[in-house]
Amino acid sequence: MIVARLIERKRDGGRLTDAEWREFIAAYARGDFPDYQMAAFLMAAFVRGLDAAETSALTEAMLTSGASLDLAHLSVKRVDKHSTGGVGDKVSLVLAPLVASLGVAVPMISGRGLGHTGGTLDKLEAIPGFRTSLSIAETRAQIERLGCALIGQSAEIAPADRKMYALRDATSTVDSIPLIAASIMSKKLAEGLTGLVLDIKRGSGSFVPDLERGAELARVMIELGAAHGCEVVALLTAMDRPLGRACGTALETEEAILALKGDGPADLMEVTYALGAEMLLLGGVAKDRGDARRRMERAIASGQAARKFQEIIEAQGGNPAVVDDPALLPQAEACELYEAPRAGLIARVEPRAVGRGIIALGGGRTKVEDDVDPSVGFVITAKPGDRVEQGEPLATIFAKDAAGIAAGRQALEEAIEVSDASPTPLPLVSHRVTRGGLEPY
Amino acid sequence: MIVARLIERKRDGGRLTDAEWREFIAAYARGDFPDYQMAAFLMAAFVRGLDAAETSALTEAMLTSGASLDLAHLSVKRVDKHSTGGVGDKVSLVLAPLVASLGVAVPMISGRGLGHTGGTLDKLEAIPGFRTSLSIAETRAQIERLGCALIGQSAEIAPADRKMYALRDATSTVDSIPLIAASIMSKKLAEGLTGLVLDIKRGSGSFVPDLERGAELARVMIELGAAHGCEVVALLTAMDRPLGRACGTALETEEAILALKGDGPADLMEVTYALGAEMLLLGGVAKDRGDARRRMERAIASGQAARKFQEIIEAQGGNPAVVDDPALLPQAEACELYEAPRAGLIARVEPRAVGRGIIALGGGRTKVEDDVDPSVGFVITAKPGDRVEQGEPLATIFAKDAAGIAAGRQALEEAIEVSDASPTPLPLVSHRVTRGGLEPY
Repeated sequence: MIVARLIERKRDGGRLTDAEWREFIAAYARGDFPDYQMAAFLMAAFVRGLDAAETSALTEAMLTSGASLDLAHLSVKRVDKHSTGGVGDKVSLVLAPLVASLGVAVPMISGRGLGHTGGTLDKLEAIPGFRTSLSIAETRAQIERLGCALIGQSAEIAPADRKMYALRDATSTVDSIPLIAASIMSKKLAEGLTGLVLDIKRGSGSFVPDLERGAELARVMIELGAAHGCEVVALLTAMDRPLGRACGTALETEEAILALKGDGPADLMEVTYALGAEMLLLGGVAKDRGDARRRMERAIASGQAARKFQEIIEAQGGNPAVVDDPALLPQAEACELYEAPRAGLIARVEPRAVGRGIIALGGGRTKVEDDVDPSVGFVITAKPGDRVEQGEPLATIFAKDAAGIAAGRQALEEAIEVSDASPTPLPLVSHRVTRGGLEPY
Repeated sequence: MIVARLIERKRDGGRLTDAEWREFIAAYARGDFPDYQMAAFLMAAFVRGLDAAETSALTEAMLTSGASLDLAHLSVKRVDKHSTGGVGDKVSLVLAPLVASLGVAVPMISGRGLGHTGGTLDKLEAIPGFRTSLSIAETRAQIERLGCALIGQSAEIAPADRKMYALRDATSTVDSIPLIAASIMSKKLAEGLTGLVLDIKRGSGSFVPDLERGAELARVMIELGAAHGCEVVALLTAMDRPLGRACGTALETEEAILALKGDGPADLMEVTYALGAEMLLLGGVAKDRGDARRRMERAIASGQAARKFQEIIEAQGGNPAVVDDPALLPQAEACELYEAPRAGLIARVEPRAVGRGIIALGGGRTKVEDDVDPSVGFVITAKPGDRVEQGEPLATIFAKDAAGIAAGRQALEEAIEVSDASPTPLPLVSHRVTRGGLEPY
């Protein structure tokens, strides 16, 4: 294999064979050729694209560059959920224990927040003592015992993807559907899944705001899953406003706990139930969507879902008492209401502006190595379309100090628009994508 | 300046401003950002292209990353020649002393051979003792005294280009007209030229075989020159067969010496005179092409051109006696005739196959760090269109040993085709390109 010839071929719009992808990615993971050659290749791949067979070969090559959870011996099905990321999206924290409590194994590898979006790992680590860096052996044992583990991508899982992702981040080659799909699926397939539900966010707060591109990403991942014995179903959901009310690490963890105890905001519950129904159907433990929804409602009402979360927290070294008393989570020093500057309709609550506000408060990352303050953020009760009076509380700002309160207020002034008219918000769940194609939900 | 934003912009087909190019290239030359970011940028630039203003800004940025010869104090004009490279192309060795002997300063920075093409530096260094690595001060002093210096690109000249060229070579981003043009012109402008003649090779042995692409490269370089006070004229010449008879380092040096003494092959002289006439016209020492040609013929007939070469050789540490006795050049151990395998017409003498043959004999490079054996190569007397008898000598093979002779014979079998018909070869000089456009020669 001559690396320069592969770069040249991709540069000119050609394709690599399965064997070439395997050798190329393995050589890169071993450090056999320098980052600058991979950077040139990635830019060529970004501009010229990868066909379906190449995307599959790349996924396979990154998957086999590392270890897998290997859960084929379990009697139950293994189903995970992946979201393309958004603001206020704490669905994973509700969904994983809820679905696991209903007899489907959920081996979940999550990421950290970056830019305007939050990350599941940060929210879990807001729970005092919670460890997200389990070994493969620990993870397998916990899934066998509790049906769920909530971990980060270790050095053992898809190391070629880790190395390539860091390079893509520095070389402006992130936003490519085949590269995104292969990166996500190489990690998800390492979880040994039988099924995967994708939450593809639409709207201004999404990395893939456009419906057609979102559906295309779903289709590519569905085909990648099919090629590896993992059935993938995608829902397209709204990210033109934050999901739920809480935006910020520990505030979101608290809202997730309340949701598991039957007290979640309506929009959060609707998205959670829609994704959960797909997981239960893929997991073979529900007859249809209605049956799935009733099972989830019962698991919440009975306390069974919240108890599963407590068991997981305890198993991973966290303090399970947070489920009974969310005040044990990190609390902000200062808080203040944010009120409507005028009467009218809430025209928009812009997720990116909210996310930037969290960064301004010290609760978000602009670089992977940044630390986050888990206590800060917003609880935004106003939703697009709501009619409000002047001075009516729209949100609460949680900050470290008075300067943070001021920064938070400025962010909300940018994020929340009160006007005479409100555009129709996107439907919470608008479409479903399967191998059969895209259909309205 | 955020490097990732510049990569992103070029990736999406956008442009950089003059100030951004200046800052970007200076930062890269200083080592302020890593090669992998430049590699991604170069691939984006390769695929998306650079507009005229960007190509000019890049050239300027690379030029000002290093030192210049600064010859503005000379009373004579400074004119150089640049060739896109070919097989048997020893024109520079004839032209530089010839034109300098007629009162035009020729500050010539040349390169080494790579792949199927030879390099002027290697041919000069075949002369015992000849030094091509002069300092800027030595070079200036020699040009003041003799009107000519024949040197390589030192670390002082366009260091940003050196660093970028090495990266382009490893990342398959060489073959881009704006990148090629900026790289050549940044070095040529560092010579402090008032005029430059380009020899753009056409045909199968050229890096830019296609007429339209060759003309486009000429146009881009003409504009770059104009923006920097350097008048550029290009001739499109034939490289569908080797130029002259000798192919191989010292063999070409010998042929160049013979040409300077009035005994050069007709095709070599025709191309040399055509390029030389342009140089003399740009240098303001000839009225028209006819006058220029007569002056050159007289300089050769009188011995003045050969004496100028002797003076240059002596000034740069070489043995000037080679001009009187070319047998002082490195001589091959073994030589053997290559004869026509059948009667017929010479259908082609393929330059790339000849170049590969020189590499097979140990006289060429596949990597920049390779050593070359200056003594080996071919003298090919057969030209496309010649009628030959079976067994008639077509070439002489010069090699290190019997194995080399066999390798050379195999290369010539591939390179020289004797057939019943011969396609019309390209005209030796087909077109001339100036700011006014492309015209037949």
